[in-house]
Amino acid sequence: MSANQPILVVGSVAFDTLHNSLGTHPKVLGGAATYASLAASHFTDVRLVGVVGRDYPDDAIAMFRDRGIDLEGLTVADGLTFHWEGRYTDDLTSRTTLKTELNVFADFMPEIPESYRDTPYVMLGNIAPALQLKVLDQVRNPKLVVADTMNFWIDGARDDLLKLLPRVDVLVINDEEARQLSGRHHLVHVASDLLDLGPKSLVIKQGEYGAWLFAGEQMFSAPAFPMAAVDPTGAGDSFAGGFLGYLAGRDAVDPDSLRAAVIHGSTLASRCVAGIGVTDLLTLDAGEIDERVTAFRRLVDFPGA
Amino acid sequence: MSANQPILVVGSVAFDTLHNSLGTHPKVLGGAATYASLAASHFTDVRLVGVVGRDYPDDAIAMFRDRGIDLEGLTVADGLTFHWEGRYTDDLTSRTTLKTELNVFADFMPEIPESYRDTPYVMLGNIAPALQLKVLDQVRNPKLVVADTMNFWIDGARDDLLKLLPRVDVLVINDEEARQLSGRHHLVHVASDLLDLGPKSLVIKQGEYGAWLFAGEQMFSAPAFPMAAVDPTGAGDSFAGGFLGYLAGRDAVDPDSLRAAVIHGSTLASRCVAGIGVTDLLTLDAGEIDERVTAFRRLVDFPGA
Repeated sequence: MSANQPILVVGSVAFDTLHNSLGTHPKVLGGAATYASLAASHFTDVRLVGVVGRDYPDDAIAMFRDRGIDLEGLTVADGLTFHWEGRYTDDLTSRTTLKTELNVFADFMPEIPESYRDTPYVMLGNIAPALQLKVLDQVRNPKLVVADTMNFWIDGARDDLLKLLPRVDVLVINDEEARQLSGRHHLVHVASDLLDLGPKSLVIKQGEYGAWLFAGEQMFSAPAFPMAAVDPTGAGDSFAGGFLGYLAGRDAVDPDSLRAAVIHGSTLASRCVAGIGVTDLLTLDAGEIDERVTAFRRLVDFPGA
Repeated sequence: MSANQPILVVGSVAFDTLHNSLGTHPKVLGGAATYASLAASHFTDVRLVGVVGRDYPDDAIAMFRDRGIDLEGLTVADGLTFHWEGRYTDDLTSRTTLKTELNVFADFMPEIPESYRDTPYVMLGNIAPALQLKVLDQVRNPKLVVADTMNFWIDGARDDLLKLLPRVDVLVINDEEARQLSGRHHLVHVASDLLDLGPKSLVIKQGEYGAWLFAGEQMFSAPAFPMAAVDPTGAGDSFAGGFLGYLAGRDAVDPDSLRAAVIHGSTLASRCVAGIGVTDLLTLDAGEIDERVTAFRRLVDFPGA
């Protein structure tokens, strides 16, 4: 597509050791930037900014390159790659962190290569709001900035987060965290409170209950794809990557395109959770994406009077 | 509409004393059959089967008659009308029962008047499964039977419930109860388990997260209307009444009509919760129903490729 624009993805690149009902999956590729980049790569060119250690394997680098992902912004630092280990409950509705070894990610200070600084579409993965602000200070006139955040920053870095939000076009946040940030419970109250903090638009992810978009006066609801997930790791990041990648691939930021982007984000998330780690994001093809978008449309279709 | 067919509604007619953040609302009109009948009356003729005590007020009788609801099946028994009292949490996500005075409802034994026995559309409100079966033994060749149930019967009358389900066309159940009946967590597993118990189709209500329809191979998702509810009492019954009333009003039971019926049920439920008790079900007009259906359509609409 001639309108195709690149996206910049900043966030964690990691190993995840996952325990679930299928067994233990040691050191699979993970991290928010990994999932978001792979998801977005189905729609547009991706530039990745992150840090890994000397132990990061060549075949992981090759995997990114195979998907056309630009790694000029991926720093290889002395030390080990970020490693997270967690255990999911059998119904996959919650997980317990067993180990968080930040390693080289502890000192992550995103440096945006000069060649990336005019990237029009920017994905601020879930890192400290101060670092997300530092990224925005380095990019020039982005057309659309999407940011993720989490409970840890809402509690521990609220002031920085409140500085960030007015500079964000779309805040993508899960419902529990949205409620934490708002202090209220109901979707319309939460959305109103969060939009008052500055982002132009808002996506509230409800996990197995789907996602909502609030853009100006518009509200849009997307169901979760009805399926039994295998591994929910990376679902939110795949959503965000698919969402922003879709918009950049069309170079469109109007409310109707945001609606379609939510469906494409949901499509990537639903494919992501069908396998362990990033596996299914790699095997997915354009036909399968279109097929699932069509399935989403049929899920909500009802006849007129 | 010439296709218009009547529905039979069997269930509780009650007084509810509601405590919520707005205050105490003593003895407002309530009960599953009340909400379902009023909701359905916007689409078709309703025949009500229930029982009230000598204290039941004339103006409540007049309210039903004003909505064209046939009360031949409403028995007035010696004693007091069923009275439920409960308190909602401020966020309206849960409620505590303070008092359940069954009164004349304790001996409710639904007798279907001869003039009702050929009613093609039947709503079995949430009463003991043995009584729901007794209703089915009295009606002749219904075209569509919709049944509601609750945790109390799933626990305490499971055998009767399992006898009932193969005779039900559409089981309408909330997600917590659906999980209780299935023993599994995830929507697609729960739906599969419940359909195995016999109902031809299934609606799983997820409260603030909307509703799902499973009909044959078809799955349909309806969002909850994004609004701050005032009083959730009767939402599920208004949904069921709106759902069945819509189908009877069109005399249609095909899967596409079931989809539209879910939206019309959601429309009535969303109007119901906008006021205390049944208030908003009485003031609603056809134009407002159409307007909300259109709003539901816009909530899930996204552009094609």
